[in-house]
Amino acid sequence: MFIQQLIKLLGSDKVSQSETELFRHSHDESFHKAVEPDVVCFPESRKDVEMIMDVAREYKVPVTPFGAGSGLEGQAIPVKKGISINFEKMNNVVNFSPEDLMITVQPGMTRLQLNKLVNRHGLMFPIDPGADATIGGMVATNASGTTAVRYGSTRDQLLDLEVVLANGTVIHSGSYAKKSSSGYHLTGLFAGSEGTLGIITEITLRLHGIPEHTVAARCTFDTPEACAEAAKTVLLSGIPVMRMELVDAESISQVNAYGGYHFPIRHSLFFEFAGTRTAALEEVKIAEQLMRELGCGNWEVAGGSKERMELWKARHEMAYAYRHIKGMANTGADVCVPISRLPELVVYARKLIDESGLTGGVLGHVGDGNFHTIVLYDPSVAGEKEKAEYTNEALALRAIEVGGTCTGEHGVGLGKMKFQEIEHGEATIIMKQLKKMFDPEGLLNPGKIFNLD
Amino acid sequence: MFIQQLIKLLGSDKVSQSETELFRHSHDESFHKAVEPDVVCFPESRKDVEMIMDVAREYKVPVTPFGAGSGLEGQAIPVKKGISINFEKMNNVVNFSPEDLMITVQPGMTRLQLNKLVNRHGLMFPIDPGADATIGGMVATNASGTTAVRYGSTRDQLLDLEVVLANGTVIHSGSYAKKSSSGYHLTGLFAGSEGTLGIITEITLRLHGIPEHTVAARCTFDTPEACAEAAKTVLLSGIPVMRMELVDAESISQVNAYGGYHFPIRHSLFFEFAGTRTAALEEVKIAEQLMRELGCGNWEVAGGSKERMELWKARHEMAYAYRHIKGMANTGADVCVPISRLPELVVYARKLIDESGLTGGVLGHVGDGNFHTIVLYDPSVAGEKEKAEYTNEALALRAIEVGGTCTGEHGVGLGKMKFQEIEHGEATIIMKQLKKMFDPEGLLNPGKIFNLD
Repeated sequence: MFIQQLIKLLGSDKVSQSETELFRHSHDESFHKAVEPDVVCFPESRKDVEMIMDVAREYKVPVTPFGAGSGLEGQAIPVKKGISINFEKMNNVVNFSPEDLMITVQPGMTRLQLNKLVNRHGLMFPIDPGADATIGGMVATNASGTTAVRYGSTRDQLLDLEVVLANGTVIHSGSYAKKSSSGYHLTGLFAGSEGTLGIITEITLRLHGIPEHTVAARCTFDTPEACAEAAKTVLLSGIPVMRMELVDAESISQVNAYGGYHFPIRHSLFFEFAGTRTAALEEVKIAEQLMRELGCGNWEVAGGSKERMELWKARHEMAYAYRHIKGMANTGADVCVPISRLPELVVYARKLIDESGLTGGVLGHVGDGNFHTIVLYDPSVAGEKEKAEYTNEALALRAIEVGGTCTGEHGVGLGKMKFQEIEHGEATIIMKQLKKMFDPEGLLNPGKIFNLD
Repeated sequence: MFIQQLIKLLGSDKVSQSETELFRHSHDESFHKAVEPDVVCFPESRKDVEMIMDVAREYKVPVTPFGAGSGLEGQAIPVKKGISINFEKMNNVVNFSPEDLMITVQPGMTRLQLNKLVNRHGLMFPIDPGADATIGGMVATNASGTTAVRYGSTRDQLLDLEVVLANGTVIHSGSYAKKSSSGYHLTGLFAGSEGTLGIITEITLRLHGIPEHTVAARCTFDTPEACAEAAKTVLLSGIPVMRMELVDAESISQVNAYGGYHFPIRHSLFFEFAGTRTAALEEVKIAEQLMRELGCGNWEVAGGSKERMELWKARHEMAYAYRHIKGMANTGADVCVPISRLPELVVYARKLIDESGLTGGVLGHVGDGNFHTIVLYDPSVAGEKEKAEYTNEALALRAIEVGGTCTGEHGVGLGKMKFQEIEHGEATIIMKQLKKMFDPEGLLNPGKIFNLD
């Protein structure tokens, strides 16, 4: 019935019930259980999205936005079925003003598409979660990644959002001004709300100048703890590192095997420094001195663009290296803690994995205290999944205990729902009230972030 | 009746009805009409604030928070009378973790008190609105100032807020993690809400390393437009300026007279560059070259700390220079626009002041597109106030038209209420719903930001 109505309003080319599409929109890259939507819509404009919401309201059908499907917490899985909205046909530039370091795009544009467009103007959108996520998906989950230590998260890049609300109203959350003290800050509220408060149809982003010169480097230490301590030292030195990543020996060994690399199989720190040529070279020199004083091994600098790319390609492949082991499933944590607690948490994470008897690694964006575990389990062996999930749970709880968060960048989705009240306490009541205010009928991505049943 | 109850619960030393206190809490630094509260409370702890809210609820009495009284839009004026809460006894450090570049303070601590504490650890809280505002007041108005071009606004410095809600619940909006994708982002919502959504009782801030070396410089141009164009050029060059300020000739002349300075009476740009010694010196060299290519005059570098301080002291005195002209009142705009529209808006602002026949200047933080006018009027001359206010209004409307905001940093308070619907459109409805959700009885700083009557 509602599907006929969608076809009538949007046209049949924007509405699909093909098995392929239903399957594609049933899952993301996480281990969460797949659920197929009833139908997939491919809007081409905000008007189309408004019509989809009209139908959703009329027939009380849930809508779940879908970006690139690269999420890691099941945000795009339509757990209550209904309509999956795929934004791949809404991937245009709405307005680009290089001299304002600002661009407005539709949510279906991916991060690599965006950078291809703006790079030739000497500009970049620096947020890099690894996967080629859509900008809409990155806003929805407040994604970040390797460069957050310097540029912050996706939320920090936002000037304005156009949002279709559950009741059909279309609003703009901000303006084109770089800063404002006018009204309430709705932009920050929609960022990270995972499609539960409204459907984002346009995004205005800050852009940044591409630094003149970039240098990568790496070194090794005897323990993950020593890596974390070293990362802390670099941070406190005031060097504005572009990236600073911890990769433990287990993960190095996985990526060597997966990608044919020959990195020393030791606990490692990967760095990137960027700025004017003078500044970048000065920073790499200071960092080398600090690392050598802390007794690092295997210090190596990758100055050339090709070498540098390879080093970061390897880093981005880490997750895939684990994920592509045949027959094995995986899960992982995404905690973020104050930098002073990082060494202790990294040790705890390694201990949890070792005690579980499973294969797994510790790696992450240690410059901002955010790190991940990846733990492999065999779904056909009874109890392995539970052991893997226990490592996640124990680590998230410990992170919250030391003042941190259960998710630094992956978002809540399905996997971190159980930690919301533990982390946010009484504020969870307010968050649920907000959800009800924006979405009284529970149409917007129901079953995510909070349990409202 | 409620005053007796306040005395009973808090003790008489924390409750005042003295004429001096009622007068002190009736106004801020703006031209908005003073209104005395019925009583002023001086809480010493969150518990005290909770008790004040209990009384406010029981007797349906409005509460209005008061920081340093340095606001420019009347946020602290208790327009519906009731209780003024002064935070001067809540000015302690709750937790300071230098290695996490993080501090938790009570809202009554001022920005200079805070910097005095953290500077000796090589750290700073960089936001500088000029006045020695309280941190609570800065959060409430999302204050910024001369360094926003590099560090953003107060909102960007926040990791967590403790807030007493209207219903008595105490929540924490965030955590000690540098970034998080957990829950809804309440921190950003409370920042800039001017005490209308809850009473902030603790603030956890990011701190930043003090740059190794700082250099100031200034130069002049023939027109304010040329200054704005020059500022745009510096910004697009990618130099991470620490401060970049436009001061027009009229304002230079005022500050020379007020402070006994001898700056050339020309339209001027003031700069500050900061970083490692090498980086700062490189930046000042590039900036000089750019400015000379654009035909600047009077390029001067203030390398020494004393000279530099004097230059910025003069800049901060600009506003006071105008405000202290005997018998004259003043008003001023606080628009922020995309940098590409800045030259045009600065020309428009100058034209508005000239056409009004009043004395006034244009000055501001042109690095982020935010600038102010200060317009003097004689309250005893019929029609002058209206002429002065017309310049504000016309400039705010023009800023909104070009995609900017009516207030870049002063906040809405009383003065920018009339622009809320024009700027935010349908989003204003959501903002008002939020206000009602958080404060159904209208107890929290009523009469500010939105007209709910």
